[in-house]
Amino acid sequence: SAPSATKVTSRNTTVVSDTPGTAVLSEEKLHIIDQPWTRDNWHQHFNWLNVGVLTLPPLLGLYGLLYVPIHMKTALWAVIYYFMTGLGITAGYHRLWAHRSYSASFPLRLFLAAVGGGAVEGSIRWWSRDHRAHHRFTDTEKDPYSVRKGLLYSHLGWMLLKQNPKKIGRTDISDLNADPIVVWQHKNYIKTLFVMGFIFPTVVAGFCWGDWKGGFFYAAICRLVFVHHATFCVNSLAHWLGDQPFDDRHSPRDHVVTALVTLGEGYHNFHHTFPSDYRNAIRWWQYDPTKWVIWTCKVLGLASDLKQFNENAIQQGLVMQAQKKLDQRRSVLDWGIPIETLPIMSYDDFEEQSKAGKKLVLVAGVVHDVSEFVNQHPGGIALIRSGIGKDMTSAFNGGVYDHSNAAHNLLATMRVAVVRGGMEVEIWKQSMREAEMRERKTV
Amino acid sequence: SAPSATKVTSRNTTVVSDTPGTAVLSEEKLHIIDQPWTRDNWHQHFNWLNVGVLTLPPLLGLYGLLYVPIHMKTALWAVIYYFMTGLGITAGYHRLWAHRSYSASFPLRLFLAAVGGGAVEGSIRWWSRDHRAHHRFTDTEKDPYSVRKGLLYSHLGWMLLKQNPKKIGRTDISDLNADPIVVWQHKNYIKTLFVMGFIFPTVVAGFCWGDWKGGFFYAAICRLVFVHHATFCVNSLAHWLGDQPFDDRHSPRDHVVTALVTLGEGYHNFHHTFPSDYRNAIRWWQYDPTKWVIWTCKVLGLASDLKQFNENAIQQGLVMQAQKKLDQRRSVLDWGIPIETLPIMSYDDFEEQSKAGKKLVLVAGVVHDVSEFVNQHPGGIALIRSGIGKDMTSAFNGGVYDHSNAAHNLLATMRVAVVRGGMEVEIWKQSMREAEMRERKTV
Ligand code: HEM
Ligand code: HEM
Ligand SMILES: [Fe+2]
Ligand SMILES: [Fe+2]
Ligand SMILES: [Fe+2]
Ligand SMILES: [Fe+2]
Repeated sequence: SAPSATKVTSRNTTVVSDTPGTAVLSEEKLHIIDQPWTRDNWHQHFNWLNVGVLTLPPLLGLYGLLYVPIHMKTALWAVIYYFMTGLGITAGYHRLWAHRSYSASFPLRLFLAAVGGGAVEGSIRWWSRDHRAHHRFTDTEKDPYSVRKGLLYSHLGWMLLKQNPKKIGRTDISDLNADPIVVWQHKNYIKTLFVMGFIFPTVVAGFCWGDWKGGFFYAAICRLVFVHHATFCVNSLAHWLGDQPFDDRHSPRDHVVTALVTLGEGYHNFHHTFPSDYRNAIRWWQYDPTKWVIWTCKVLGLASDLKQFNENAIQQGLVMQAQKKLDQRRSVLDWGIPIETLPIMSYDDFEEQSKAGKKLVLVAGVVHDVSEFVNQHPGGIALIRSGIGKDMTSAFNGGVYDHSNAAHNLLATMRVAVVRGGMEVEIWKQSMREAEMRERKTV
Repeated sequence: SAPSATKVTSRNTTVVSDTPGTAVLSEEKLHIIDQPWTRDNWHQHFNWLNVGVLTLPPLLGLYGLLYVPIHMKTALWAVIYYFMTGLGITAGYHRLWAHRSYSASFPLRLFLAAVGGGAVEGSIRWWSRDHRAHHRFTDTEKDPYSVRKGLLYSHLGWMLLKQNPKKIGRTDISDLNADPIVVWQHKNYIKTLFVMGFIFPTVVAGFCWGDWKGGFFYAAICRLVFVHHATFCVNSLAHWLGDQPFDDRHSPRDHVVTALVTLGEGYHNFHHTFPSDYRNAIRWWQYDPTKWVIWTCKVLGLASDLKQFNENAIQQGLVMQAQKKLDQRRSVLDWGIPIETLPIMSYDDFEEQSKAGKKLVLVAGVVHDVSEFVNQHPGGIALIRSGIGKDMTSAFNGGVYDHSNAAHNLLATMRVAVVRGGMEVEIWKQSMREAEMRERKTV
């Protein structure tokens, strides 16, 4: 096979020439994922280790379901081990190590590193590094499981296909390198995987009630398939199904179904906004067993420093997102001709045109043509007719009836002009006239 | 009994003296409802005609339920007549005459005036006048059935107790006086009431299938009690239970339960905002049989000119009310010290204090004390620490990470000062220094 598959060179560092003569040269330097799929190189596009890990268990599990009898105790143990290894990922890999949303004592860290390893999803160090990149570069090229590349890609494809490691966003994992358990698990990952993923669940069922075969096929294999797809849903379903009450700039969403599937990781819009909060669900009635387990560990003295954003910050997030949605709704509506763009009319003109038969009403300095509306006025024809040719500002605003917002909005759609002055101008004119008269008398 | 009961004089027109000597005189001029309840005058506080109309049917109905057998046909007829007389009120009295939300042909008007009379709730003219006052003066002293006086008062009390007619708000009913059917029904109201309320439902059951007794007790009496309390719910329940999506300045509310009870009049918050709309429910899946009947009459050519506010105006109402609620939610939250009230600091001061150990970060011209937050930063300790003593405006706003609204809000709570200038001041200073150097050289 071509050496280009092993030479990991990102496009960013390679100057790709557009000249046909140099095309072959540049292609050789391209990372495999940047090369087109051909009959010769298609197999190089796959990460065959991952393909094996993700396709063999379902096949083995299917064989088990068909040919291996299920014993009650083994079934129960499989479910328990499902929760244990699932929590290894959610409470351990995710909320503890990737987000440091709480601190765990040595025994709890040891336990989570072990059962998390049994979920066969890579080492803590590798998983958390990718996950931090996923948060920091959500939905971009640097997001290792960006849902923008498709729902199936974010669920499985990103593991089945090779990725250009240089393209994945860089993140700081110095804290992980400082945790001896993380470092040990990373170095001994293959051992951990086999022991916790396959041997331990089999041995428990075999040793304790003699069901070696059931232990292997159900507690190890079938359990693993379920844990895989459940936790993968956080990357796919949680970025695809549900509401966005905190932020809609990116794909994360909140949905109870995702929460049910993922041991509580379904309130993912909240989680991406407040990633260091040890909770994903913030209301007591929402399903977040991972949170309940962490909280219980705190009560037992195994966990401490549970981080929690204050309610004020959370409410601010909700209010700002609601405001954004409201502004979008507002912007598609007709709010009438802006006052600045209306023609200007003198008050005398307004009076004259009204006398001449036009149905004009003056409210707050703006002339409105109500001819279409007179017969529909909910307050009766007589009242609105009595306002024609007059300044009805106070009558409209409570003097006769304190109209609703709806009425104000309706009024705005009837704007035709702005007057140079309203009643106050008339009063001023009159007092000028009177002053003139007085002056004439005195002179 | 005292003559004061018949002398209808409102408090507004009587100067009540506070001097004890004249107290008796003024009390004599007071309307009965403004007098205190005493052992002598308690019976004058009641409208005995209404008390009879509202208490005898329930008692008679109870007697019927206990002693008169129910026949299938009569039961069905009672339900049908319930709907007919209920619609007389909702489609006739209310939406046609009180609100003129559509036009009806002579035969339809005749029918609605007849079955509406059978609901025994007063004449169209009286009912509509009160109802218009209820809309125009909702929740005030001038509202004849203001819920502010209690739920029971708005349901029944306003009819059982005497009201001062001068206190009820005045409304224009010239259009009703111009409708011959309305005028005829008002003049012949007692006749209408007996014929349509009691005789007609009894005669139908008696004549057609011989159940005179059942016709009286079920189709007339029991049916009447149900129609009464169902329609009264529009004045009580609809001002008490549910949401206020259009306007919360007054009591009207939307609720599906009220709609189910009142033949669709339960979307009362909408109705008070858009009273001239022939609909109360604006979505097809909401329960508003009165609307369906009016629409069917239009199809049959019996009704026309069905008034409907445009969707734009309705959406505007929803948006403005949602904005109001959001503003209320926003106003109770802490949005940080307003920038105008922060002390001013020089950039050099900011740098010096940071070097001296304070954990200050400059973002958008504002100095933030992040000491409490460094260890909790979701993006890691290293990154935020790297910003201490520096202007991190672009790093914070996307240069390194495009922080969420939540992060911006959190930042606002850490404000301590405003700097006289940021990086741009430093660059300006530097270029001044360089210019000075050059000048020195050239001089
Ligand atoms: C000039 C344009 C006008 C418009 C667009 C308008 C619009 C409306 C609307 C939409 C309502 C229904 C209730 C509400 O939404 O508040 C209403 C009710 C009313 N209007 Fe107007 N109006 C106008 C002018 C007037 C004037 C000039 C008067 C009085 C001089 C008046 C008196 C009333 C009264 C008394 C009601 C209460 C009706 C009831 O609820 O029974 N309106 N108007
Ligand atoms: C100065 C006060 C700061 C506050 C209050 C703050 C707050 C936050 C918050 C709340 C988040 C969670 C995600 C979000 O809500 O957007 C976050 C994430 C992040 N912050 Fe900051 N930050 C600050 C400073 C900085 C600085 C100076 C840098 C970089 C130089 C930085 C880099 C990051 C990064 C890279 C993340 C992404 C973490 C992830 O999602 O994995 N922050 N910050
Ligand atoms: Fe995510
Ligand atoms: Fe996360
Ligand atoms: Fe009402
Ligand atoms: Fe009404």
